Parts: sequence; C-alpha cells; structure tokens
Amino acid sequence: MKQSSLFREIHEQPDVLRALIDQEAAHIRRIAGRLREREIRHVVIAARGTSDNAATYAKYLFGAVAGLPISLATPSLYTLYERPPRLEDALVIGISQSGQSTDIVEVVREGRRQGVPTLAVTNDARSPLAEAASHVVDIHAGEEKSVAATKTYTAQLAALALLASFWVDDAECVEAIERLPAQVAQTLALNEAVANRAERYRYMRDCVVVGRGYNYATAFEIALKLKELTYVVAEPYSSADFRHGPIALVEGGFPVICILPAGRAYDHVFKLASDLKERDAELLVISEQDEALDLATTCFHLPAGVPEWLSPILCVVPGQLLAYHLTLAKGYDPDHPRGLRKVTDTR
Amino acid sequence: MKQSSLFREIHEQPDVLRALIDQEAAHIRRIAGRLREREIRHVVIAARGTSDNAATYAKYLFGAVAGLPISLATPSLYTLYERPPRLEDALVIGISQSGQSTDIVEVVREGRRQGVPTLAVTNDARSPLAEAASHVVDIHAGEEKSVAATKTYTAQLAALALLASFWVDDAECVEAIERLPAQVAQTLALNEAVANRAERYRYMRDCVVVGRGYNYATAFEIALKLKELTYVVAEPYSSADFRHGPIALVEGGFPVICILPAGRAYDHVFKLASDLKERDAELLVISEQDEALDLATTCFHLPAGVPEWLSPILCVVPGQLLAYHLTLAKGYDPDHPRGLRKVTDTR
Repeated sequence: MKQSSLFREIHEQPDVLRALIDQEAAHIRRIAGRLREREIRHVVIAARGTSDNAATYAKYLFGAVAGLPISLATPSLYTLYERPPRLEDALVIGISQSGQSTDIVEVVREGRRQGVPTLAVTNDARSPLAEAASHVVDIHAGEEKSVAATKTYTAQLAALALLASFWVDDAECVEAIERLPAQVAQTLALNEAVANRAERYRYMRDCVVVGRGYNYATAFEIALKLKELTYVVAEPYSSADFRHGPIALVEGGFPVICILPAGRAYDHVFKLASDLKERDAELLVISEQDEALDLATTCFHLPAGVPEWLSPILCVVPGQLLAYHLTLAKGYDPDHPRGLRKVTDTR
Repeated sequence: MKQSSLFREIHEQPDVLRALIDQEAAHIRRIAGRLREREIRHVVIAARGTSDNAATYAKYLFGAVAGLPISLATPSLYTLYERPPRLEDALVIGISQSGQSTDIVEVVREGRRQGVPTLAVTNDARSPLAEAASHVVDIHAGEEKSVAATKTYTAQLAALALLASFWVDDAECVEAIERLPAQVAQTLALNEAVANRAERYRYMRDCVVVGRGYNYATAFEIALKLKELTYVVAEPYSSADFRHGPIALVEGGFPVICILPAGRAYDHVFKLASDLKERDAELLVISEQDEALDLATTCFHLPAGVPEWLSPILCVVPGQLLAYHLTLAKGYDPDHPRGLRKVTDTR
C-alpha cells in the first residue's frame, strides 16, 4: 500500500520540531524582546480549525507563564458585523497554517490599523497573513499535503512555547523545549500498538475526549482529528465542564479518551476518569502515570519527565495515531476526507 | 402525567423576562452608569455550563455594542495553576445561576483583590458569587428546579442585553428588549408542533447544531440541552469552523440543526445549510425566513421582526422544546437526567 501523506507527516514531527528550534528560535527571541518593550495588557488571538486549538493552548501558556489574559477573537465582529473591538494595549496574534484565511487576516489587519503590535504564526512566510502582520514566526514545517493538520499543529505549539519562554527570558524553559523532538520520537514508537488497538473501535460512532488546563487544547485537537478523518462524532470537554451536563451521555461502554499527564490538572481529570470507570465507561487513557493507565481499557503510554506546560505537544500524538489507524480500520482514505479542502474559505 | 418542572420552567420564560425588566432594569442602568466611569479596556467573563453559553453571547454583544474585547476566563489558571492573569483595566463578570461554583467565585474574588470592577449575574443575590462581586445583577428567575437550565439562561441573556443597552445609553435597544416577553410567548406556541415532530428523532444518536455570530451561543446551548436531557451526542459549531473539518461527518440523513434568523450572519449560515442540503443532510431549521425554512425537513417558525442581537433569546426556545419532547419520546425523565445535580462542584 502506498504510504499516505498523513502517516508520513505524523512521523515527520520530530524533524519539524528540530528544524523549528534550529531555524527560528533566535528570531522568536528577537520578536519576544521587541514585544516586551510595548505595554501589552492582553492578547487577542484569531485562528480557525486546528490553529484555533493552538490558540487555546496559548491561552493557558501566556496566562500561566506571562500573566496575560488572552481572548480568542470573534472574527465575525470584524467581518460580518463590521464592529471590530478597540484593541488598545493588546497584542494581536493570527495563527494559520496556510496564512490564507481571510477573516484571520482581517483581524490582524485591524490590529495594524489600530497601531498595536501584531504577530503571524504561519507555515508560509509569504502568505497574506504574514504580509499583514508586523512580526512573523515561520513554523518551518514544510508543505503539509494531508488535509488533516498534524505536524503544523505541534510546530505551532512549539513556536508559541518558544515565544512564551523568551518573553519571560527563562533558559530552563528553552532547554525543556530542546528535549521535545526526542520525546515526540519516543511517543511515535506507540505506532504499532495503536495500529493493533484501532480494530476494537471499528464500529465506534461517538466518543468524548476529556482534558483540562494545558491539555484542554489537546482534547479539542484529538476530537477534531477523529471527526475529520474517521467521521466519529467526538466531543471535546474540559473535565470541569463535562460534569455540567454532558456527563449524562455516559452509559456502559461509552468511549471516553482521557488526557492524563502528570501536572496540576492531573488530580481533577483522574477523579473524573475514576467516576466514569464506575459508570462502566470505556476509557482510553493517555498518560505516563501507572495509576491512570490502570483505569484504561486502552493505554497510550507517554514518556516520563515532560513538564505539564509542554505535555500537549506529546499528548496529541497518540490521538493522531489513533485517528490515522481508525481511518484505515473503517476503510476510509486518510488523505481525502469527504468534503474537505486544505484551505477553507471562511469569509 | 404530572407536569415536569422542565416543561413548566420553559413556559415561565415570558413571565421571568417581564419580572427581570420590571424589577431589575433600573438597577442595571445604575450599574452601567458606574461602570462607564471606569477606564475599562476589556472584559473577562467566568462561567460554566449553560452560563458559559450566556458568556459566549456576551462576547458578541459587548463586542458589537460597546466595542470591547471579551475573554472567557480560564478558571483553572486561578485555581489549579494559581497563576491568575493581571487584570488591570478589565471588568470581571461572573455568571452563575446558583452563584455557588467555587472556581467562578474565585475569578471574581481575584478581580476584587486586583482592584478592578466586578459584576455577578446570578439567580441568588445572597450567594457566594454575589458576595464576592462589587455589583450584582439578580436575574429574578425564581427557583429553577429542573437540572437542565432554561428560564435562567434566557434571563441571563436579557440581563446582559439590558446592561449593554444602558452602557451605550440606547433607548431603542431597551424598547426592543421590552418586546421580548411577548415574542417569547409567541415562540412557545410552537410547543404542540414540536411535540408531534419529536417522534421522528426517537432513534437519533448524534447531530450537529450550527449558528454564527450572536447565535453561536444558541448552537452551544441547544446542543447542551440535547446532551444532558436526551443523551444525543450533539455537537455545536460556528458555520465557519464547521467547514474546517467537522463537515466531513455529514452523510445522507445526518441531522443538522441550523439557526437562521435574519441578520448579518444569515447569508453565511444559509450558504452552509444549502451545501448540507445538497449532501442530503436532514435539516432542522430555526428561522422566520421562508427561504431558509424551505430547506428544512423540520421547521421551527420564529416570530418576525426581532433584531439579530436579541434573536438568541428566541432562537433557543424551539431547541428547549425539542430537547424536552425528545426526552419524552426516548422514554427518559426530563427532571432527573442520569448522573447530574443542579449545582456542580468544579473546584
């Protein structure tokens, strides 16, 4: 069988992260230095689809590391309603793999018009988004052929992690990022185990993906991969919001993917997973903790020693592999999901 | 059959809105006046569950009406991570029916500690949330017995709409709000038609709910009602994000609820609905526009003449009725969804 672009790009991730660190870190350091000189009180991020999940990661990252409140822009206020908010004292960030999304470009242009600093995080440094922004981070992921984004997502996360680390000028943080390529490679060793395990979920029609804190974004991204590739109705949730209603969905055998790396969010998600286990839910657990993996019908064992704030870059990988292998198990084409194109027109 | 609390509370909505306007509008006007005196550059809102959907409405409302960027707080930064962001120049709003959610209270307390104005929107003016905030809006909805929130959601929306109207001191806006109780009563006349129609969806297991702009919140709220009451895996989407991947889910007969009132978002959602129709999706349409209703297998006909910014208060009502009648059709108990309690502990 011809290898799919999706499979290849999932496995390119360690190299992409290496290239990003080697080729872009010094530039990101300079951007962080220039942004620190501005009086930035809050950050507005515009993004769609997978990039929007990277924006959710940024919300926790810049909040916890730099103490800045982050809002996810509502692009329709800028386009449909023609009522862009006042952006004084804000940093405006647009995140888009292609740099083509017209409404994301529009938010960044509005920031520029209002004279506030703007930043593009993109895989195409000559795209309209890059042209609109005053600063550009190129994620150096190489062409992404697969409609389902994988390597550009983890590269966006790593680029944002570098920016936050240089923002607070923390050398230890940068060193932790340096270790990521090897750790992602180690996580990819799960591939064969996931391939064997995917069969069990051949007839799965719906599921829930639960994470909290930094890995709230991971829940959204794994759910998105499952939806676009396997057509499983996968619902992402914070473990806190899940108790506010949606937990009613869970009956015996209902599949729930729990993202459970060590860290501050661990206890809360572990408590939920234990409660779900009592309701006879089918748990798929992404963790390096034995106690958490013991709850699972299906385990995705992570490498140990990754700090929580970087764990989303690892935790998403088993989800990508599951989405890929489940696509094959269900007899679909991983490179041609029905009704999707790589660049979406969202004017 | 004994009438359920849920049915009664759905039908109390016109009276609750009337009570809110009569008993709280003057107080909200005074609060708006005092907030206008402060130098507010952005708004941070903390909420969970149904109240979080009200917060999403506020994002568009305060953005479009008052030109303010709104961020939805990430409570875990305040609690789990103990890294609350700097809130200078922010207004902090906590929305909670019960006023008991500990992490929402914590965000408001942090605002108070940092010396910025804080506002509680709650159904209990003696709750911990109300005690923590410098200003309190009581939504006057009366006790809500049903676990699934209905009347407190529309009352929260109306309270926020009043606040925005007084903020910009627009008498026409306030007059439009005055007309809501009668318009909601008119929408409730759909009850019998929805009751008859619910049978068709007895075996529906999953669906998608699509809205954009002001009614992005409505998509989330209708999906939440369906999940907590009928256990249907209902996924909310903006019509823009839906094209970024999840549209792959849609095969022949896949049910999609489209929220399509007249307004600036209409064309975009209508275009998506037309595309979905071509894919033979089963469309349930909430609209007052014949062109939109013509696409539908199941129509929910709204009263005409409601401005888009207030339409979420009407558009959610057919969704509440559908969730209620589908609960009965599926043989579940509307007042006792499995595994839910009225107040959720989300520490």
